[in-house]
Amino acid sequence: MVLPNDLLEASVNMNVSLLLKDGRIISGKLSGFDQYMNLVIEEASEEKEDGEQRRLGKVVVRGSNIVSISML
Amino acid sequence: MVLPNDLLEASVNMNVSLLLKDGRIISGKLSGFDQYMNLVIEEASEEKEDGEQRRLGKVVVRGSNIVSISML
Amino acid sequence: MVLPNDLLEASVNMNVSLLLKDGRIISGKLSGFDQYMNLVIEEASEEKEDGEQRRLGKVVVRGSNIVSISML
Amino acid sequence: MVLPNDLLEASVNMNVSLLLKDGRIISGKLSGFDQYMNLVIEEASEEKEDGEQRRLGKVVVRGSNIVSISML
Amino acid sequence: MVLPNDLLEASVNMNVSLLLKDGRIISGKLSGFDQYMNLVIEEASEEKEDGEQRRLGKVVVRGSNIVSISML
Amino acid sequence: MVLPNDLLEASVNMNVSLLLKDGRIISGKLSGFDQYMNLVIEEASEEKEDGEQRRLGKVVVRGSNIVSISML
Amino acid sequence: MVLPNDLLEASVNMNVSLLLKDGRIISGKLSGFDQYMNLVIEEASEEKEDGEQRRLGKVVVRGSNIVSISML
Repeated sequence: MVLPNDLLEASVNMNVSLLLKDGRIISGKLSGFDQYMNLVIEEASEEKEDGEQRRLGKVVVRGSNIVSISML
Repeated sequence: MVLPNDLLEASVNMNVSLLLKDGRIISGKLSGFDQYMNLVIEEASEEKEDGEQRRLGKVVVRGSNIVSISML
Repeated sequence: MVLPNDLLEASVNMNVSLLLKDGRIISGKLSGFDQYMNLVIEEASEEKEDGEQRRLGKVVVRGSNIVSISML
Repeated sequence: MVLPNDLLEASVNMNVSLLLKDGRIISGKLSGFDQYMNLVIEEASEEKEDGEQRRLGKVVVRGSNIVSISML
Repeated sequence: MVLPNDLLEASVNMNVSLLLKDGRIISGKLSGFDQYMNLVIEEASEEKEDGEQRRLGKVVVRGSNIVSISML
Repeated sequence: MVLPNDLLEASVNMNVSLLLKDGRIISGKLSGFDQYMNLVIEEASEEKEDGEQRRLGKVVVRGSNIVSISML
Repeated sequence: MVLPNDLLEASVNMNVSLLLKDGRIISGKLSGFDQYMNLVIEEASEEKEDGEQRRLGKVVVRGSNIVSISML
């Protein structure tokens, strides 16, 4: 069995794509996380619906707003 | 009595279909889960309303966004 | 006094109808539940507004999405 | 001071009317409750906006969906 | 410093007006409360937008649905 | 580092402006607060969109509905 | 691994941009935070959609309303 926590730990320093509750998609390098699934994402960018990308830099994303985390 | 946790444990490595709070349907192989019902889904894909499928690969889906988990 | 938990325990293996927060109605046989009112429903089906039924099979329904559980 | 819990205890076997978060109104006999204010309602019926009543029988209503409980 | 709890305690048997999350306004006499700010309101009435009042009698209002409590 | 709690403590008896989740803005004198950030506001008034002010008097505002607290 | 908490600690007295659940964007200097990710922001301003800025001064922003915190 692969625990969610183990997968996240194995994915540190790798690229992930987050789907947020409000429909936003944020991509970047996973730098760290805590037990609430709050994430630190570096070189983050938001994928806009028109295909455009908005640079966000280094961000903390709160776990309570995350729907899913895809490993890229 | 079948506990939800027992059913999930018996379903590891089997295909499941998730209904999320925002109406999305995600299918794939259940690889693991934790006590918050956060799930690891492999070979995940999202079923779009037009019948199209969007590949998601390996994902962590947060339990707090899940309405139901169907065993396929 | 009838505790909610006692009524659920007495209803295992009986048919129930669930009203979910998003308005969906799911019916089937209650196979088990846990302390969060997560339920295992077998032979589950969703009653669509047009009277049609969609088969769901064996499902875990998360308690946090349930409004009410009717004993049939 | 009348504690909410005491009022509920005094209201067991009496008729109550529940206002739910989604605007539904459910009436019936309060048979029991737990510390989360999950309620068991017997002879429950939902009052529809057009004045019609839909019979629900014996139901567990989750406290997290309840706005208020009126003693009738 | 006036703690919220102290103000509520000083307001028992006095008239209060509640603003609920869904925009409803309920007025009446505060009879009691618990640590979740669940309230017992007596002689409660709901103020409708058209100025009309709907009598509710004795009600338990769940704290999780309350935005604010005004002392009258 | 200024802890949120310390800033609130230093702001007791001063004027604050609250932004609530439903978009309402409430201003008044902060009289006290507890560990859930439930606040007691005196001489409270709600700023309506048309610039009008509605007097609320002494209110308890539940922390779970507060987005931000501005020190005036 | 960079823990969210560590990144926040390293960002005290630096400029951050907050995305809130209701879509608002608030920028300013991070003065402090607690374990719920409640933040103290100084010289805060809200970026309006029309590009205009609304000055907020010193604010406590509740963590439960924050989607993400970008380090500027």
